[in-house]
Amino acid sequence: MTPRELHDDAIVIDGLIIAKWNRELFEDMRRGGLTAANCTVSVWEGFQATVDNIVRSNALMAECSDLVRPVRTTADITRAKEEGRTGILYGFQNAHAFEDQIGYVEVFKQLGVGIVQMCYNTQNLVGTGCYERDGGLSGFGREIVAEMNRVGIMCDLSHVGEKTSTEVIEASEKPVCYSHCLPSGLKEHPRNKSDAELKFIADRGGFVGVTMFTPFLRAGVDATVDDYVEAIEYVMNIVGEDAIGIGTDFTQGHDQDFFEWLTHDKGYARRLTRFGKIINPEGIRTIGEFPNLTEALSRRGFSEPQVRKIMGENWVRVLKDVWGD
Amino acid sequence: MTPRELHDDAIVIDGLIIAKWNRELFEDMRRGGLTAANCTVSVWEGFQATVDNIVRSNALMAECSDLVRPVRTTADITRAKEEGRTGILYGFQNAHAFEDQIGYVEVFKQLGVGIVQMCYNTQNLVGTGCYERDGGLSGFGREIVAEMNRVGIMCDLSHVGEKTSTEVIEASEKPVCYSHCLPSGLKEHPRNKSDAELKFIADRGGFVGVTMFTPFLRAGVDATVDDYVEAIEYVMNIVGEDAIGIGTDFTQGHDQDFFEWLTHDKGYARRLTRFGKIINPEGIRTIGEFPNLTEALSRRGFSEPQVRKIMGENWVRVLKDVWGD
Repeated sequence: MTPRELHDDAIVIDGLIIAKWNRELFEDMRRGGLTAANCTVSVWEGFQATVDNIVRSNALMAECSDLVRPVRTTADITRAKEEGRTGILYGFQNAHAFEDQIGYVEVFKQLGVGIVQMCYNTQNLVGTGCYERDGGLSGFGREIVAEMNRVGIMCDLSHVGEKTSTEVIEASEKPVCYSHCLPSGLKEHPRNKSDAELKFIADRGGFVGVTMFTPFLRAGVDATVDDYVEAIEYVMNIVGEDAIGIGTDFTQGHDQDFFEWLTHDKGYARRLTRFGKIINPEGIRTIGEFPNLTEALSRRGFSEPQVRKIMGENWVRVLKDVWGD
Repeated sequence: MTPRELHDDAIVIDGLIIAKWNRELFEDMRRGGLTAANCTVSVWEGFQATVDNIVRSNALMAECSDLVRPVRTTADITRAKEEGRTGILYGFQNAHAFEDQIGYVEVFKQLGVGIVQMCYNTQNLVGTGCYERDGGLSGFGREIVAEMNRVGIMCDLSHVGEKTSTEVIEASEKPVCYSHCLPSGLKEHPRNKSDAELKFIADRGGFVGVTMFTPFLRAGVDATVDDYVEAIEYVMNIVGEDAIGIGTDFTQGHDQDFFEWLTHDKGYARRLTRFGKIINPEGIRTIGEFPNLTEALSRRGFSEPQVRKIMGENWVRVLKDVWGD
């Protein structure tokens, strides 16, 4: 089987996309052979604005039902593969949209949200993100984790501080994930995870999606898809071949205003970071180039079963563990 | 001058009342000779529910304008004294109502809010309360403190954790207060403040209102107004006679449902504490008995100037420092 045949045959899951949602993007997902993706519908928004985002996304998906389908169970991912459509799973990058209501967790589950990052860069009612001093998981946060476990929403810790992350990993009775992170063993950065952190989550049944955001890669903006594969291999050597997947962090289609919004607390308050030039690794600059990743993994010497696990099978298994179906 | 004459002549400020607002209560404030009070209009409520509380309070105050008047400046306190009415100052016991909008600070100042406690018992976007582990003042919290300084809203730290309190005291360029607290030197309790904490705030130009909530007093539910005066004297010996005032925490008129709401995180989530029997010290069980406090202070040997300072003059001075007028 050639790498391209393998890519076309495999379940391909992207654990984090925060692109500009429109028909062109969904077409690019088909071009890239994406089976399903965790698509961000909330970052700084509160409850109602997040519901509004979901309503708009639902309308767009209805218009583009030849290209995409909703994902609420792992069976929906299988169906998406069979139908030749891309499954869209709604996810949050911040538990802020739960506001102060534990009951909103189940509301969002019912609206199709399957993964929620506990904090985005800064402190919220649940804990603290990775761009400020982290006091750990709050008492309310423990109640939110328990409710996410109960209703079947996966806890994501990518942008969460180390202390809060550790305590969520310990508190959760279901597997949790870093949906999109890179190892600080290759490059030191507040967003990257140390070998100890990667080992800690894996030892407790958790999951790591590897991202490719060039400012956090060793090679920086000059990175290619092979540098991305280097990071994947580095993480796999720590977490093992069953706890690893992809989480690209594609921001395709967004303009500078969007990045200004992302990099300020609450979307407008103090600046938290500057990304500099935003360019994905050569060879995987757009979602449509996803087959090059399968090819690069194969070229690096990963076996076919390993490639299938990394590209999507592991994500499906861990999502089933959390969702129950 | 008899203690009663002194009481009637003095400016009498209560730094914290969270009673059930109605005409009977305002009548009792007149009976007690209260010149002005910081009246809580938000605890667990978000922005809009807090605005609704203010709208309802405005309507009630309009109906009862023979008894009360709004307080937005210290000149309003003087006017209230002259008019024989009680000045009502709106305050929050939680910065939660600011939600994630720094701009809401000025909105609430314009709606008449003059004092805001940074946290109520638990973690919010600003910092952490005194009933859970405290990670300190958040980056967003620093922006809120700066904005409160700018628009002239006093930072209150009574229910705030020690670490967040320390950092607010250090961050604020205007005096901050514990509007209603007791010394842990007389009774150990998460809500009480150590000698070191009392000294720290006073040394930095801050202010301490002494409360009388019997579960936090040395004598417990058997306490009398003289036990309250003991606590006042204890605090004055640490902070000095110019940085001390009254903050009773009267909850007059509320039923058990209200205390259940207060003692659960967000008003409904996990239980944070149990008050047990709620009864104010004998001699000052109701706001109408306020003159007994002046009498007890006099009986204890406080001088007339000291009594005047404690009963209200100090509050007026520190509020003027923060508000600018």
